[in-house]
Amino acid sequence: MLEQLKETVFQANLELPRQGLIKYTWGNVSAIDRETNLFVIKPSGVDYKTMQASDMVVCDLDGNIVEGTLNPSSDMPTHAVLYRHFPEIGGIVHTHSTWATTWAQAGLDLPAMGTTHADTFYGTVPCARFLTKEEIDQGYEEQTGELIAATFKERQIKPMEVPGVLLHGHGPFTWGKDADSAVMNAVVLEEVAKMNLFTRQLNSFAEELPQAILDKHYLRKHGKNAYYGQK
Amino acid sequence: MLEQLKETVFQANLELPRQGLIKYTWGNVSAIDRETNLFVIKPSGVDYKTMQASDMVVCDLDGNIVEGTLNPSSDMPTHAVLYRHFPEIGGIVHTHSTWATTWAQAGLDLPAMGTTHADTFYGTVPCARFLTKEEIDQGYEEQTGELIAATFKERQIKPMEVPGVLLHGHGPFTWGKDADSAVMNAVVLEEVAKMNLFTRQLNSFAEELPQAILDKHYLRKHGKNAYYGQK
Amino acid sequence: MLEQLKETVFQANLELPRQGLIKYTWGNVSAIDRETNLFVIKPSGVDYKTMQASDMVVCDLDGNIVEGTLNPSSDMPTHAVLYRHFPEIGGIVHTHSTWATTWAQAGLDLPAMGTTHADTFYGTVPCARFLTKEEIDQGYEEQTGELIAATFKERQIKPMEVPGVLLHGHGPFTWGKDADSAVMNAVVLEEVAKMNLFTRQLNSFAEELPQAILDKHYLRKHGKNAYYGQK
Amino acid sequence: MLEQLKETVFQANLELPRQGLIKYTWGNVSAIDRETNLFVIKPSGVDYKTMQASDMVVCDLDGNIVEGTLNPSSDMPTHAVLYRHFPEIGGIVHTHSTWATTWAQAGLDLPAMGTTHADTFYGTVPCARFLTKEEIDQGYEEQTGELIAATFKERQIKPMEVPGVLLHGHGPFTWGKDADSAVMNAVVLEEVAKMNLFTRQLNSFAEELPQAILDKHYLRKHGKNAYYGQK
Repeated sequence: MLEQLKETVFQANLELPRQGLIKYTWGNVSAIDRETNLFVIKPSGVDYKTMQASDMVVCDLDGNIVEGTLNPSSDMPTHAVLYRHFPEIGGIVHTHSTWATTWAQAGLDLPAMGTTHADTFYGTVPCARFLTKEEIDQGYEEQTGELIAATFKERQIKPMEVPGVLLHGHGPFTWGKDADSAVMNAVVLEEVAKMNLFTRQLNSFAEELPQAILDKHYLRKHGKNAYYGQK
Repeated sequence: MLEQLKETVFQANLELPRQGLIKYTWGNVSAIDRETNLFVIKPSGVDYKTMQASDMVVCDLDGNIVEGTLNPSSDMPTHAVLYRHFPEIGGIVHTHSTWATTWAQAGLDLPAMGTTHADTFYGTVPCARFLTKEEIDQGYEEQTGELIAATFKERQIKPMEVPGVLLHGHGPFTWGKDADSAVMNAVVLEEVAKMNLFTRQLNSFAEELPQAILDKHYLRKHGKNAYYGQK
Repeated sequence: MLEQLKETVFQANLELPRQGLIKYTWGNVSAIDRETNLFVIKPSGVDYKTMQASDMVVCDLDGNIVEGTLNPSSDMPTHAVLYRHFPEIGGIVHTHSTWATTWAQAGLDLPAMGTTHADTFYGTVPCARFLTKEEIDQGYEEQTGELIAATFKERQIKPMEVPGVLLHGHGPFTWGKDADSAVMNAVVLEEVAKMNLFTRQLNSFAEELPQAILDKHYLRKHGKNAYYGQK
Repeated sequence: MLEQLKETVFQANLELPRQGLIKYTWGNVSAIDRETNLFVIKPSGVDYKTMQASDMVVCDLDGNIVEGTLNPSSDMPTHAVLYRHFPEIGGIVHTHSTWATTWAQAGLDLPAMGTTHADTFYGTVPCARFLTKEEIDQGYEEQTGELIAATFKERQIKPMEVPGVLLHGHGPFTWGKDADSAVMNAVVLEEVAKMNLFTRQLNSFAEELPQAILDKHYLRKHGKNAYYGQK
């Protein structure tokens, strides 16, 4: 069942430690098959050295396990909710990567301060508030997904234009058209989080990127007339 | 004698440089066999490139060498004292890892500011005070262990809920149910120390993690109804 | 066509991730053949794992593609302009390396604070201002090159004495007599940017390097009577 | 001539990039044979990938080349002067390692703030002042050595108790009983420089290590009754 997607998700999970985004088994990657509306996610707490593609777990959008003998990542319900709310996305990544998590712990939005940011994120990456005790009791992981969706709706941010979020006191989620681009967006977010922190330390008056440069960089790569990369 | 445990302790010591926690021979790992109340610890100042499992030294809880031709780690008496005071623990790690040592040098408790912390440490990691000249003269390494135990008692912290400590001007000790989990806790402490330092720099008003989220993350992994990982 | 130069440029591009200057395909290196006034540059957005020397693109100084089936780096027109304005240079590098980009995002000139800087850069590395909307609309990449040239002219800096620049909100460009020295200058700039940031944090009154030491270090390596290295 | 020492010095130079202390050829290691008063030092600016033990240069204490076809490191005269003034030392290392150089650029002494420092350096590592124009004109590299010696004399620091120095605006020199221990001292200095910088940032009131702990750690490793390591 979804063997190809399992292999993709498996490889994308292995990419997390290679990119320095996680230690041990702290992260998780999933990808969805939009035809069947089933998604594949890594199992919970399995050592990356022994994990295999066949260990990946298949789930549906209500968070039910459809195939697999191992428990899925405990964050699986968050993935399900995000796939429900954001129909454009095909892959999701969650990590506790150092610098993005630092911003998340600080409870601050990550502003666009350079073109590295603008090449991937079309503006500020929002930091969603702490979950309340009520939300936690109601279902921590589902409510995390609901809070992300509500944050994007309330702030009128399009998930494919800003493919990531920070969770106050927790860490980042990123997404993309597939698992690989979600991982790449996690790498960019981590790097931008590091640079922006030190930018503000170096010059506390440092300005956000002017709109015209933000537009130029985002659109030359993702706009209608994009001319970055090969056709 | 305790050949299996020697191999475990040997491998756990090799893991320290692989995880970036030590340079040269600066750290030490031990593990105890609670049936015989003997523990195995690495020898002092032996190059990790040539060290073998058979070089591990066996000691008793009074700090006597029971087997081994090499001197044990000079911190051995601290390990003995901790095994005496904390009967639940099975392994101990000491390093001078960069960021945990930075907090130790700053003489500050490490507060829980995110879920990375909460997944392993159920609240603030305490920083024990400097040893006095009298304590040093009395037996520096033993008194270090006594001070750690006294700090946990006085502050009513359970050693298995907060499996680590900072020593003012020195560095971290961590522990766990066995050598491997003590190493993992050292990795988490180091990462959290790094993130929390920069979190406070980024936002000096950054709040500690709300109790409800601390509870949720710690208990979903370590509580009675834990659902993280595989059964 | 220019097969030797393609190999050189290809290898120099591969050196960028090895030196920790880029992630993915974020940077680009070019080199020029001054006899034909043609330069070779890497293609846009091609995975470094599969890229080959034959994928390099040959361009002329007006920014036309002379040979190659792939799109050149989207920053190609900046390279063309720099080769036109700076006839002494033979290679150009552009990266978003962490610390140089941090200074670029802060919008600050990078002062000479130590001999590591002085061994390569004979004084302050300038930070060019943001491009205006008009300049962007006129041709973003060309105007980036024009702005760099204008900055050096206005501030009377010789491009071979200070072989690099920061672009506000973007990142560094470096150059040199050939592709390899341009890469080496990018490595130096990155390291100096890191050290100077923390130097100022450690001591906000830290002085710039005295002129006599700046002269000594730059000139013992690059002056008429240089005695560094082998003849 | 001194083939054994050449091999030692060659290997010690290769250790610098492995320990992350240098990029390219920025550092140099030497070691002396006290019977003949000749020392061996690496050649200037030779790529570490092609450098061989036989490329090492033999010099005398007046800074004359005694054997070797390549130019010695341009810092060779500094080494000669240090060997003359500090008869106890057997090896010298110079690097521009990131964090030690940051303190050097800040022009600040490096205080003992933890036991990592105390295990190797018995107190503050001094920062020598900038050289004057007159000293530079008189012979930059020799005068650098003279300034280091004068700084230790004036401040009554014993070179084997504090085996290293920072040079304002430049970087660290370390030494030891031989080349290997000089390299190890460079590694310790770099790590301590990093930790102390962030310690002060975390807590600007952080205290220096109490004298009793400094004594204990330094002397348990280097004192008459040292009990660290194996006999």
